Amino acid sequence: MPQYFSEADSVDAVNARMGAEVSPRLRRVMASLVSHLHAFIKDVQLTQEEWEFAIEFLTRTGQICSEERQEFILLSDTLGVSMLVDAINNRRPSGATENTVLGPFHVAGAPRRAMGESISLDGKGEGCLFEGRVLDTQGRPIQGACLDVWSDNADGFYDVQQPEAQPRWNNRGVFETGADGRYSFLGIKPVSYPIPHDGPVGKMLVALGRHPYRPAHMHFIVTAPGFQTVVTHTFVGDDPYIASDAVFGVKDSLVAPFQKEGPMWRSSFDFVLMPLSP
Amino acid sequence: MPQYFSEADSVDAVNARMGAEVSPRLRRVMASLVSHLHAFIKDVQLTQEEWEFAIEFLTRTGQICSEERQEFILLSDTLGVSMLVDAINNRRPSGATENTVLGPFHVAGAPRRAMGESISLDGKGEGCLFEGRVLDTQGRPIQGACLDVWSDNADGFYDVQQPEAQPRWNNRGVFETGADGRYSFLGIKPVSYPIPHDGPVGKMLVALGRHPYRPAHMHFIVTAPGFQTVVTHTFVGDDPYIASDAVFGVKDSLVAPFQKEGPMWRSSFDFVLMPLSP
Repeated sequence: MPQYFSEADSVDAVNARMGAEVSPRLRRVMASLVSHLHAFIKDVQLTQEEWEFAIEFLTRTGQICSEERQEFILLSDTLGVSMLVDAINNRRPSGATENTVLGPFHVAGAPRRAMGESISLDGKGEGCLFEGRVLDTQGRPIQGACLDVWSDNADGFYDVQQPEAQPRWNNRGVFETGADGRYSFLGIKPVSYPIPHDGPVGKMLVALGRHPYRPAHMHFIVTAPGFQTVVTHTFVGDDPYIASDAVFGVKDSLVAPFQKEGPMWRSSFDFVLMPLSP
Repeated sequence: MPQYFSEADSVDAVNARMGAEVSPRLRRVMASLVSHLHAFIKDVQLTQEEWEFAIEFLTRTGQICSEERQEFILLSDTLGVSMLVDAINNRRPSGATENTVLGPFHVAGAPRRAMGESISLDGKGEGCLFEGRVLDTQGRPIQGACLDVWSDNADGFYDVQQPEAQPRWNNRGVFETGADGRYSFLGIKPVSYPIPHDGPVGKMLVALGRHPYRPAHMHFIVTAPGFQTVVTHTFVGDDPYIASDAVFGVKDSLVAPFQKEGPMWRSSFDFVLMPLSP
């Protein structure tokens, strides 16, 4: 190869600079990153002004990040990257419950509650009974499975987004299954809401003609000893944003029934967990 | 295509979301970006932990940026992106002076000086006479060409990096050619120096087994009415880092002679400018 960088040999010029001691995995990831990054720039013949905009966009995205805000995760989410990484790392056979994005609003340490208890502390919203079973792939109930659940409130905000307007742990709880593998708790029928869109990612969505909404969903992390953890949601199927989730989180198998029964809703959903080692 | 995001159709799922009113150029750039970004992730089968590291790396890179520091430009420079974008946007026929990276240390408004004057204000370093001509592609001298020049000092720092240790405008100046197209000024033989490497990009270079040094160079921006601007350096050919510039800025045609003449050095280099409209 030539001694110096050139447009034609740009990828090799950069990748040949890596030292001999670089770990094989880092070498492979960086070589591929440089290759695809340069291919993108060549493909679109990126202009100097577009490069300057990209530098400025990335800088603004980094600078708005804080303890409470992770704009690069929003960027990853809205470009389908988060769902793609999750898909690659959690391929499961048909029948096992699929993952979706964790999202930025999970909080560890939610109160453990008895089966059937309510997680709604602010009394707002349409009541909904969530219930079902945690099963293995043979359909056998799993005892001692933990369901860590959380949703927004009737106004579309998680408690951590409104620390002064919502009681702490509003619409959050942890439930453990007994021998029958069953779970049930009272919450509200979740509502659709926009992801934070007052920053660079929000501006990007506007420029791309996209809305920032997520269809209504209940979050679940389901863990059980000896089984793979499931990080997922159940979605309200008739939500107006069900086919245009801003973060691409919806999967067919995660659209759950939400049925009106008198003044209440009922959503039944079974979780099927894969064994840790098959 | 399927209604929802899937690993197989991830690129289409994201790009199909763009609105009808998106400008054709933005549509093309974003579609290509998403396509290459997803292809990279699939190629290396990026793990969840690697994704988390990437989010954290980008966040740190954004957060170290300030008025005085642009870490995303350093990242672009060290991955060969800056040179690639410059190459794509400044293709010139053989014989015309090539561009290289601008770098982060240019300051507009340097003092205008008479031909032959010195730009070295701190008296440190090995004196060097820089001289040559500004020509059109027919070899005719260009009158009224402006040369905006800057270099580091003998310790490897630009004046703006050491506002208390160096006089303002040390090793900077602007010179205008007369009818003969000639320029000449006194400076110092520049020295190699590391790019700022106490941040995320410096950590990346260490992980990749790369050093942060740039071979010694003198910066030039050459402008003239009716001609394309040249943003470039001349390099000291016998520099130990000449073949391993951390930002890939070296080109064969930009390696200039530096000859010792008694106590002084002399570096002769002609700039050849392309007409604005051929």
